[in-house]
Amino acid sequence: MTNAQIDIAIIGGGVSGVYTAWKLKEKYGDKKKIALFEGSGHIGGRLLSVRPPGIDNMVAELGGMRVLENVQERVMALIEELNKKLPEAEKISLFDFPVDEDQNIAYLRGIHLRLSDFVKDPAKVPYRLSKEEYGKGPGAIIVAAIEIVVPGIAEATDEERREMVKKATYEGVPLYQWGFWNLLYRVVSSEGYQFSLDAGGYDTTLVNWNAADAIPWFLSDFGITPRYMGFTNGFQQVPITLGKFFEELGGTISLNKKLERFEWKNGFFELIFNNETITAGQLILAMPRRSLELLAPQSPKLQEINSLINTVTGRPLFKLFTTYDEPWWRKIGGTPPIETGRTVTDIPVRQTYYWPKDDGNPPTEGKSMLLASYDDGNNTGFWDGLRPKRSLAWKLGRSKTIIDAFRGADDKLAIKTATGEYRLNQQWSDYVAPIRMVEEISRQLSQVHDIKATPEVKSAAFRDWGEDPFGGGWNSWNIGVKSWEVRDKIVHPITDCPLFICGEAYSDAQGWVEGALQTADIMLKRLLPEHKPLEYAFR
Amino acid sequence: MTNAQIDIAIIGGGVSGVYTAWKLKEKYGDKKKIALFEGSGHIGGRLLSVRPPGIDNMVAELGGMRVLENVQERVMALIEELNKKLPEAEKISLFDFPVDEDQNIAYLRGIHLRLSDFVKDPAKVPYRLSKEEYGKGPGAIIVAAIEIVVPGIAEATDEERREMVKKATYEGVPLYQWGFWNLLYRVVSSEGYQFSLDAGGYDTTLVNWNAADAIPWFLSDFGITPRYMGFTNGFQQVPITLGKFFEELGGTISLNKKLERFEWKNGFFELIFNNETITAGQLILAMPRRSLELLAPQSPKLQEINSLINTVTGRPLFKLFTTYDEPWWRKIGGTPPIETGRTVTDIPVRQTYYWPKDDGNPPTEGKSMLLASYDDGNNTGFWDGLRPKRSLAWKLGRSKTIIDAFRGADDKLAIKTATGEYRLNQQWSDYVAPIRMVEEISRQLSQVHDIKATPEVKSAAFRDWGEDPFGGGWNSWNIGVKSWEVRDKIVHPITDCPLFICGEAYSDAQGWVEGALQTADIMLKRLLPEHKPLEYAFR
Repeated sequence: MTNAQIDIAIIGGGVSGVYTAWKLKEKYGDKKKIALFEGSGHIGGRLLSVRPPGIDNMVAELGGMRVLENVQERVMALIEELNKKLPEAEKISLFDFPVDEDQNIAYLRGIHLRLSDFVKDPAKVPYRLSKEEYGKGPGAIIVAAIEIVVPGIAEATDEERREMVKKATYEGVPLYQWGFWNLLYRVVSSEGYQFSLDAGGYDTTLVNWNAADAIPWFLSDFGITPRYMGFTNGFQQVPITLGKFFEELGGTISLNKKLERFEWKNGFFELIFNNETITAGQLILAMPRRSLELLAPQSPKLQEINSLINTVTGRPLFKLFTTYDEPWWRKIGGTPPIETGRTVTDIPVRQTYYWPKDDGNPPTEGKSMLLASYDDGNNTGFWDGLRPKRSLAWKLGRSKTIIDAFRGADDKLAIKTATGEYRLNQQWSDYVAPIRMVEEISRQLSQVHDIKATPEVKSAAFRDWGEDPFGGGWNSWNIGVKSWEVRDKIVHPITDCPLFICGEAYSDAQGWVEGALQTADIMLKRLLPEHKPLEYAFR
Repeated sequence: MTNAQIDIAIIGGGVSGVYTAWKLKEKYGDKKKIALFEGSGHIGGRLLSVRPPGIDNMVAELGGMRVLENVQERVMALIEELNKKLPEAEKISLFDFPVDEDQNIAYLRGIHLRLSDFVKDPAKVPYRLSKEEYGKGPGAIIVAAIEIVVPGIAEATDEERREMVKKATYEGVPLYQWGFWNLLYRVVSSEGYQFSLDAGGYDTTLVNWNAADAIPWFLSDFGITPRYMGFTNGFQQVPITLGKFFEELGGTISLNKKLERFEWKNGFFELIFNNETITAGQLILAMPRRSLELLAPQSPKLQEINSLINTVTGRPLFKLFTTYDEPWWRKIGGTPPIETGRTVTDIPVRQTYYWPKDDGNPPTEGKSMLLASYDDGNNTGFWDGLRPKRSLAWKLGRSKTIIDAFRGADDKLAIKTATGEYRLNQQWSDYVAPIRMVEEISRQLSQVHDIKATPEVKSAAFRDWGEDPFGGGWNSWNIGVKSWEVRDKIVHPITDCPLFICGEAYSDAQGWVEGALQTADIMLKRLLPEHKPLEYAFR
């Protein structure tokens, strides 16, 4: 490794990037020069926590918002490890994140139901379910279907499930050659499938992705009663803390530094940024799949592994938060009142979360917030039509945004870390929603809640993760891919070339921080044979 | 124009390419050397007519299959013009192509209806329609919605409609800045929208594309009673005839000649094909949008106009034909029996056409064919999961195809042209469907027809037009684009550079041959001021 200015370059400041940077720096200390480059202005990638204007006790999670406390060992182990190092006042604190409550609304096919109706009053459910499906909720229908295909898998551990799906076949075809949609269509009714899609809240989880991956993925989220946990100071505290730890050890982080292309020149990498070339001995791409795809045409080494990069498909995700003067949803009737959890519907709003305070409790009065819409797949195209096009030089007719009235109150979220309070580089107003989007979400929310109109939206912010350079909120394995082989191969795809790749896209827990950490650990094990992967003793 | 080997090079042998080539050759005769290059092995582009094995009186249209006889003046004028030149036995012959018949099935939300129920027995329709929507069919609901937005437009001529949508606004926003989905959601109920989507048979016509284009486009197809016409010898006869006329005048057509990149060198174009470079004075790209996109990275002049190319979005379309020993659908009951027209459903099969004989009449006995599935948008992903992946080196578990048993009967379709019988370069077996796809379509067809099982499929062929280099069966204008400006600009996008572009993608009749001819005529008018565009006197 001659002439290299730095020993190890890490591209991408999402969780897998900063975790890797920290672990490598922990090992090498001053012996190696390690630098992280991030194309945007902030650390965190698809974790993006902002403070809603005027609401000091809530954090809007425009990106990832939770962990599965009883399933995801790596992220839980990481939080434990970080908390051991952090002083009391700065520890990463979690709260129970409620999802489906009995009294939550399901507005499906123009009918207003409560979630409890799925089981207690199934005659109300406007889908012609089969006898076996009748009286089940959307998750239970899919789990029962999966059990028909791979008997016993629901009760197995995640590790056992991964082995079972590798070996399993359905009608003589290995599961990895089945599309999840195609497979489900064989074991659920078309109406059972549609109900699970509509009432499940997501479009892309049940599409035609690799069934051998979809099955354990689905079961980890919906199989046993999931215990979702949110973050008091925002999920972004985790990568911010990792980045700070890395910097404290002497690592350097450069923001707004976008890699445009790179070349491998027999001994070192030449990294071309805007107006600057940096050489590095080893290169770690901790980037979303779409970013790799954008980088590939100008980077010969990535072109060599196009077929590996293309083993997954990016799936758009969209989030829109709205704030109000009071939690009006508590007053729309029903016993107990709706104060927490989420509503599901088949109209484009799809999922609404009654957002908790930063202690996990629901607000009882005063300024409050909704994750008004959380949707994916086709529905993101609905919201996309209500904002200026990124690629077109045109303006919306009414571009005035509601945030203007609140700009004074807009503030960057402060996260306490080991080096003191860290004020994030991004804020709510960077993601403000245009008025046409707000008008439409209000109309749909009033329909879902069966009220004449919702109170005035005070401010709104959105993020569409389908945009470049992310190309999706999550990625899914393509049909026909042996993901377990690609996952282990892509971390170090070319023999004799010190190029490494990690991130959620090529993991067993796609779309989760857990997946980002899994591939980072697999990669680190290649870089540092003595690396100790994250492990957690579940209580 | 120095050193150019040919005067005018036309890339692409779809309708717009061969029509343009013929018209230019008609004008210039021996004065100019005009050559057409086609990347595939056949002329016709997305018109692809094949003979089903053992069925001599039917033509399977794997691509475009019909014209709107009472609306599409250019294609009707072209057929008239060609027929004047063709001897009696070789004339292009049309037949009435039936679509929606009262007795056709609508299988929606698990309920079996007949189309007549929409109007005659609306209580059966399993959608909670609004009072205004109740008792209307899917097309009528959308037309009524459009009339709310632009009063009077349904009764206007196409030309008047185009002027109306340019000026119209809704809630102060010009129509071209509205997404069609967003707009419809303002004037129909969510259930009315879903019913129109499900029972209309298509997913992509009602998505979020430019409302100023979607409205006249929708009205031309669904506004007045459309008169669909099919082709006795296959729609591909039209471009084949055009190509033959071009050749007869001395033009040259090269098949399997794919343009890889081109450069403009101040005076002539350098066209780089596989292992050969050809120079041309003028260059006409008669290619799908996706082909332009694929060509652009290596062709600097196309990069200059990326923003023009990206004003439309490709929309996948999928067609699957199946053959049987007899027209079993006649026997499933109902009066009159189902013998023609199409079934619609919300399950992935979406549309089934009871295919007519080449005289337009339905078969009453003996070997018969279905366009078993005609679908678009998301549903193409369902069928995509049941066949080998193009980009992956893997095989389906059961790759044996049904066609094997019929290979002896497989034949190329012969079309009579002015130079004699012309046997097409492609055949049914080039597009044969894998057995897993056939098993699934059979299962869905039995569900839709409410029978235990459909008789054995004798042979099956499919085409997914989302594949490269087509990238879609049709293209739709993006929100925010003034299509009327782009349409006129893109035919000659760069001043002082003799580069020309035509095709359905940038037309007022996207997805139709009519649109291909419209842009070709606009382009020809620039190339030849004396060019007389196609005009038709409707009876």
